[in-house]
Amino acid sequence: MSKDIGITVKKAENFSEWYTQIVTKAGLADYAGIKGFMVLMPYGYSIWERIREFIDRRIKKEGHKNAYFPALIPESFLRKEAEHFSGFVPEVFWVTHAGDEPLSDRLAVRPTSETIAYDSYSRWIKSWRDLPLLLNFWNSVLRAEIKMTKPFIRTSEYLWQEGHTVHATKEEADREVMLILGIYRELMEDMLAIPVLAGRKTDRDKFVGALYTTTLEALMPDGKALQMGTSHNLGQNFSIPFGIKYVGKDENEHYAWQTSWGASWRLIGAAIMVHGDDKGLVLPPKVAPIQIVAIPIYYTEDERKPVYEEIEEVSSLLGQEGFAVHVDDREQYTPGWKFNEWEMKGVPLRIEIGPRDIEKKQVTLVRRDTFDRIQIARERVVEETGKILDEMQRNLFQRAKGFLEAKTNTTASYDEFKRMLEDGGFIKTCWCGDTGCEAQIKDETGADIRLIPFEREKLFSKCVRCGKEPQEVAYFARAY
Amino acid sequence: MSKDIGITVKKAENFSEWYTQIVTKAGLADYAGIKGFMVLMPYGYSIWERIREFIDRRIKKEGHKNAYFPALIPESFLRKEAEHFSGFVPEVFWVTHAGDEPLSDRLAVRPTSETIAYDSYSRWIKSWRDLPLLLNFWNSVLRAEIKMTKPFIRTSEYLWQEGHTVHATKEEADREVMLILGIYRELMEDMLAIPVLAGRKTDRDKFVGALYTTTLEALMPDGKALQMGTSHNLGQNFSIPFGIKYVGKDENEHYAWQTSWGASWRLIGAAIMVHGDDKGLVLPPKVAPIQIVAIPIYYTEDERKPVYEEIEEVSSLLGQEGFAVHVDDREQYTPGWKFNEWEMKGVPLRIEIGPRDIEKKQVTLVRRDTFDRIQIARERVVEETGKILDEMQRNLFQRAKGFLEAKTNTTASYDEFKRMLEDGGFIKTCWCGDTGCEAQIKDETGADIRLIPFEREKLFSKCVRCGKEPQEVAYFARAY
Repeated sequence: MSKDIGITVKKAENFSEWYTQIVTKAGLADYAGIKGFMVLMPYGYSIWERIREFIDRRIKKEGHKNAYFPALIPESFLRKEAEHFSGFVPEVFWVTHAGDEPLSDRLAVRPTSETIAYDSYSRWIKSWRDLPLLLNFWNSVLRAEIKMTKPFIRTSEYLWQEGHTVHATKEEADREVMLILGIYRELMEDMLAIPVLAGRKTDRDKFVGALYTTTLEALMPDGKALQMGTSHNLGQNFSIPFGIKYVGKDENEHYAWQTSWGASWRLIGAAIMVHGDDKGLVLPPKVAPIQIVAIPIYYTEDERKPVYEEIEEVSSLLGQEGFAVHVDDREQYTPGWKFNEWEMKGVPLRIEIGPRDIEKKQVTLVRRDTFDRIQIARERVVEETGKILDEMQRNLFQRAKGFLEAKTNTTASYDEFKRMLEDGGFIKTCWCGDTGCEAQIKDETGADIRLIPFEREKLFSKCVRCGKEPQEVAYFARAY
Repeated sequence: MSKDIGITVKKAENFSEWYTQIVTKAGLADYAGIKGFMVLMPYGYSIWERIREFIDRRIKKEGHKNAYFPALIPESFLRKEAEHFSGFVPEVFWVTHAGDEPLSDRLAVRPTSETIAYDSYSRWIKSWRDLPLLLNFWNSVLRAEIKMTKPFIRTSEYLWQEGHTVHATKEEADREVMLILGIYRELMEDMLAIPVLAGRKTDRDKFVGALYTTTLEALMPDGKALQMGTSHNLGQNFSIPFGIKYVGKDENEHYAWQTSWGASWRLIGAAIMVHGDDKGLVLPPKVAPIQIVAIPIYYTEDERKPVYEEIEEVSSLLGQEGFAVHVDDREQYTPGWKFNEWEMKGVPLRIEIGPRDIEKKQVTLVRRDTFDRIQIARERVVEETGKILDEMQRNLFQRAKGFLEAKTNTTASYDEFKRMLEDGGFIKTCWCGDTGCEAQIKDETGADIRLIPFEREKLFSKCVRCGKEPQEVAYFARAY
């Protein structure tokens, strides 16, 4: 593999450049011909399909159904919830003309679907029998990014799902918020092998228009936090202006309670950052589009045929067991070139089969996370492959969890807080609960409150900055 | 079921109103809060999921991969292919501002992705080794509809897939065009039970920018044709302005050959029109989200428990065999009310189980297409259900095929042509090949050429209108 094809910088030395190189060189995404936007390429898309299938299956199991709402939203709808409007308006792409005709009401290219959906919901919901309404939309949303963009992490358009549910009571909406947060956590920890911290956002950082926002936060290798997914209780903040009312069993009319929640292709960016190494991407087996790549090794034309026969047999055995196997039969590349390419693309397991392996009735496996070279008996290939992939999935999670734990520190001192921040990571401390104090900390240190844990605990006797009586334990970090 | 819940007009008497009632009352789609747009509701979405799964599986099997391109396209890209631009510009939604900032290059909300994709393709393709490039995008496209809109059939935004492939030679592109047309045909005829005619469009109706367009056309019960899906050979019309070139095995640079093709949620509209009846929707079993609805029948509290036990057992048996079964256990509705509702929603098969059925070790089945009431032995329920659903799938197709054949007439006389048009349907005749003559026929009769069959044949000795020597056999119809 020539130098410009491989990754040319080290993760520890130039994290940002390393990330960008992986994204493009592994074929996950490409810069589009329009600034701030990206193209999700086939390899990246197939990871997104695995994420999508997981969420889709889990939320359907919990009674949710998919629907599709328009991509354009009249400005008058967006204006109905004042905070929501002022939060989104700076980044909205506005449609002003259809063909040559100017429009009387400007149309926003969907930045999120609350308002267009709730306009319909207000007509659909009449009685307690119509509740809960549990819908989800797979689409893309557009928010003009003025800050530095980064593929998957911050782009002017992204693929995501947005759930929008309606309930009779606050308690039911509370339960829905936590149910979804649990599904997201399962996706992140069990599928993507990324450990997360869970909690709620402060009022300053909650979703515009929400009663409260819950969040899952992960830590990237450069010490910055990344918001991985959020689930909001919207209270009655939208049901009142949109008139989403139901006649209850008590025969009185009530405003409904609502939730919304979303997870996006950003998760792919997180997986790249957390697991990748100097050789490229490292994909957790459960989300890898190709879990095993099989590479034939032969030196003479005589060896060619038996090697291919053996490799076809082994890969079809593994395929039957449900593993995603790819045989790299390209003649124009050497095995070494192929090793490098598939390592860059993060395929969890490589199987090499050469004449010596056939002779010894064995196969040679190489793990992408540890580069361990393992010879196993041919007859045990299915069983051992399964074990190794499971072990790799666990190892990636444990490694990331070790890092998260090592980089989560506690202090009561503002000076130490500032010093700690220079090394990155989460800082657990106490906060007075005042939004002004929170904003000051952000101004002075660049760190904000990533979350307030759900379980209250007593930690220190004063706010880390102002010294007042603490209201909350909070996790601070600098973030993407 | 009260009158305003059921369909209040007859299909034969007011087809347009009948169609609109089914769309909304069966819960397939709803009008959105923005004119010309619709909301795809959960029941409609789940039909779309079945269509999507079919196409996705079939095109992946043929080596295609999914990707995602931006929803906004710079005007300068659209302008690169002149015909393409002038064809789309009257219906483009234009983004002129991001937040408060005016944009220097206006952005089109994606009316189709040729130009944004080919800008990227020109950077990706260097050598014959990069070909063929076989990509597909699942997204929505927006085209401001000034004509009368109709849910699924003509809306300002619709969900679809668009395939965009690149090949080394015209012959390969030709083969791709036909491969896809075959997959679409399989979807329409085998899944949706809608017979189609295949052929190519005249130059007047081909896709703007294409070398030629192939099409599948169906006939709706009101006698109007509906274009069901198209597959285009773009020739080098885009590869030249976009600079999509490859170095061939001959070491020379060549412009590539391209195809694009798409099918949309319009197919759901076609299925509603073709199969529905005065009671509502009739869904072909292969695309029905619920294939079988099981309804408990009991009169006393004592009967309730055994009926439910039996119904759970039967439905779980059917579920295990892969049938999509739903048990309607709602207590607040009578069986009669439920029958009407599920008939309106077009569920192919109803299973009724009451005390008498249990006693006789039988179940009662009712087919949605014929309303045949069939008693079958309980032990044969899986086998018989499969047979009946297959038979219904075939019956729907045969019924529609009979209609299509009855409504496809042949004439050499322009007077007869005009009389025939009043009864609707396709008219097979001869055409001189002149675009002006074609336009005149459209002006004079409202009919246009839906397709030119792939196989040439000698039919009559002169053009139906001008009497000149015929170049082509053509199928004319009035159309949606």
